[in-house]
Amino acid sequence: MSDFDFGVVEYENRLEAAQRLMQRDRLDAILITGEDHFRYFTGFNSPTWVNLTRPRYAVLPCQGEITLIIPTSNTEIASRTSWVRDVRSWIAPQPADDGISLLRDAIRCVPRRYGRVGAELGPESRLTMPVGDFLRLGRELATTELVDAYPLLRELLMRKSAAEVAKIEAIGQIASSAYEALPGRLRAGMSIREACMAFRQELLERGAETSPYVIGVAERLGYPCINLEPSSKTISEGDVLVIDTGSTRHGYFCDFNREYAFGPLHEKLRHIYSIVWNATEVGIQVTEPGRKMGDIWQQMSNSMQHASEAIGLPFEPFALGRMGHGLGLRMCETPSIAPDVNTVVEPGMVLTIEPSMAYQIEVDGETRRYVCVHEENIAVTPNGVSLLNRRAPPEMPTIG
Amino acid sequence: MSDFDFGVVEYENRLEAAQRLMQRDRLDAILITGEDHFRYFTGFNSPTWVNLTRPRYAVLPCQGEITLIIPTSNTEIASRTSWVRDVRSWIAPQPADDGISLLRDAIRCVPRRYGRVGAELGPESRLTMPVGDFLRLGRELATTELVDAYPLLRELLMRKSAAEVAKIEAIGQIASSAYEALPGRLRAGMSIREACMAFRQELLERGAETSPYVIGVAERLGYPCINLEPSSKTISEGDVLVIDTGSTRHGYFCDFNREYAFGPLHEKLRHIYSIVWNATEVGIQVTEPGRKMGDIWQQMSNSMQHASEAIGLPFEPFALGRMGHGLGLRMCETPSIAPDVNTVVEPGMVLTIEPSMAYQIEVDGETRRYVCVHEENIAVTPNGVSLLNRRAPPEMPTIG
Repeated sequence: MSDFDFGVVEYENRLEAAQRLMQRDRLDAILITGEDHFRYFTGFNSPTWVNLTRPRYAVLPCQGEITLIIPTSNTEIASRTSWVRDVRSWIAPQPADDGISLLRDAIRCVPRRYGRVGAELGPESRLTMPVGDFLRLGRELATTELVDAYPLLRELLMRKSAAEVAKIEAIGQIASSAYEALPGRLRAGMSIREACMAFRQELLERGAETSPYVIGVAERLGYPCINLEPSSKTISEGDVLVIDTGSTRHGYFCDFNREYAFGPLHEKLRHIYSIVWNATEVGIQVTEPGRKMGDIWQQMSNSMQHASEAIGLPFEPFALGRMGHGLGLRMCETPSIAPDVNTVVEPGMVLTIEPSMAYQIEVDGETRRYVCVHEENIAVTPNGVSLLNRRAPPEMPTIG
Repeated sequence: MSDFDFGVVEYENRLEAAQRLMQRDRLDAILITGEDHFRYFTGFNSPTWVNLTRPRYAVLPCQGEITLIIPTSNTEIASRTSWVRDVRSWIAPQPADDGISLLRDAIRCVPRRYGRVGAELGPESRLTMPVGDFLRLGRELATTELVDAYPLLRELLMRKSAAEVAKIEAIGQIASSAYEALPGRLRAGMSIREACMAFRQELLERGAETSPYVIGVAERLGYPCINLEPSSKTISEGDVLVIDTGSTRHGYFCDFNREYAFGPLHEKLRHIYSIVWNATEVGIQVTEPGRKMGDIWQQMSNSMQHASEAIGLPFEPFALGRMGHGLGLRMCETPSIAPDVNTVVEPGMVLTIEPSMAYQIEVDGETRRYVCVHEENIAVTPNGVSLLNRRAPPEMPTIG
């Protein structure tokens, strides 16, 4: 009784592609510990990753089959969700040896050509096992060098198959519907938390499976950041509410935000919304195979700078470090759409286009520094891009 | 405009307690990277942890104030949710130096007494930063030794304050209400996924903030495991559905499950449910300050073995490795209620009591191996325990 995200051919293709890169990078094997990498290569899928007590390991050899090393309590998960048949297990928790000797033996059984085994070590990675056990593994493997395989893994996961893009589009459409339904449920006087709970309900009813990222910020005439836990603060007339979500279906994320104005929209906000909306349009239009990430960033930045100056507004960048990123089994993946990033756009990439700018505005006699961030999700095609969610409206929706 | 989980005195107490243990364990400082430890010591609270691009660091010195080292895009979060005032930041992502030189300098500024700095390295820990950066930090700190601080951290977090226990009870009561409301929404013919979506809605409407763990399994006359992503399989008459959740409010988890029988309950299942329900009762009753974790396990195991043998049922343990665990800012914390665990019960501990047994049953002429797991959440008081959720009914609820 299998419950796979994809057909077996998709997993076989992924393993083959990884093995080609492993030969290029001179790796005998790659040790996988992270939830997204696990699901990508093995199919293994369960909410049990929330429990940090029991680690799990997959060994991808340069040739041949994957080995899964998992707690006995996870073997039923593997038999239903994974195409991998070489499954070894131990009764966990067993702090003195939580799978480490099984893992060491599995790595030793891989034919030795390069004496190098890759692991999730580089920038943006997380090794999803105790680091003390990883260091012990390194000592026990002695002459085998443990090196960073993270760039290889991200190079692979960056290029999505058509079946993956379809899953990201499915959750993008669900979240679009949830955002579009929200004005009917929002009213001044409710708290930010209540507004975000209503949004979570809309997501759930429309088929989102998890919503690990739901933020909400609302202040008078704007918002100063886009990553706060929704608070119990009451939303008042004149506030602008921003909501952002990373929600999933079949493990794949959408990631985009929307803004709502309570009461008539201030003239300055109307301009800024329009400037950032247009920069998003520029980002979507200039993204195509062959273009560098840094160039997309520059085009969006130029667009906002020129449009700001045209109406006499000083252009202030927002120190987010980038204006978009990869999207897939993680909410935020490489590459970054940031200055000086030379990664080239390729068909199959899924990206967020996320321009932002800062501005100052007078609120009750005091100058506040706010930001405006827009975000859309796109897939790169052979000739350009396709939008995976429904575009934000060209004017900010108003409530009441 | 602060939005703290607790008053500042609670955080001051936590830091002081940590500093006492740091002197005992001869540590100049502890490096904190994980979400739960961050929230515990600094208050810092945001859904942004889902984004793995930007790491964040807290340095707890053996004397004096905490230093936060966070991306500029996180400083507004810190100013609203954290009591820590020494906040240093950089524009992230910056893969060549994502906060590491700031972190190194902060650690170098801590007075050197022992030449040892602790980090989250031991069994059950996760270092929430790239391991490559951690190894680089170790090289740059040169004569300062990076050692495991995980046992110290868990020793501290294991003993909850009254304010923490109140938060765990709040989410326990919410989840109890959601489970109790569920029979009115369940019917044969719906899928496991639909049943779990209804449960998620009930949790949300009653005030759960996140539900990162919701599993559902339903098969004829039982279930073979308790950690599957809810599938699209249709629930039929004669099935038993198990749902388990780790849901949160203010960051604190509940963790317990419930079972529902579709149609009249099979006689053997009635017995097994009762055996495990009674073992839970034993676990709750024998837990008191001074008792060892291994002893609680033994008493529950004995209870199930005697009760099984009394009705001629062979007793089979379920290879879960334990029958309960700590609960708090993580769904599964130390200690484990497992054989040979000598950790002693103390007032302030919050535990799950989670006995389980396996059994065999004939289904359509074929022998299936199923499990039965019950779980409740308790807090240890000076004299015994208090139940933080509402007890499962003594007989399995039936649907239809």
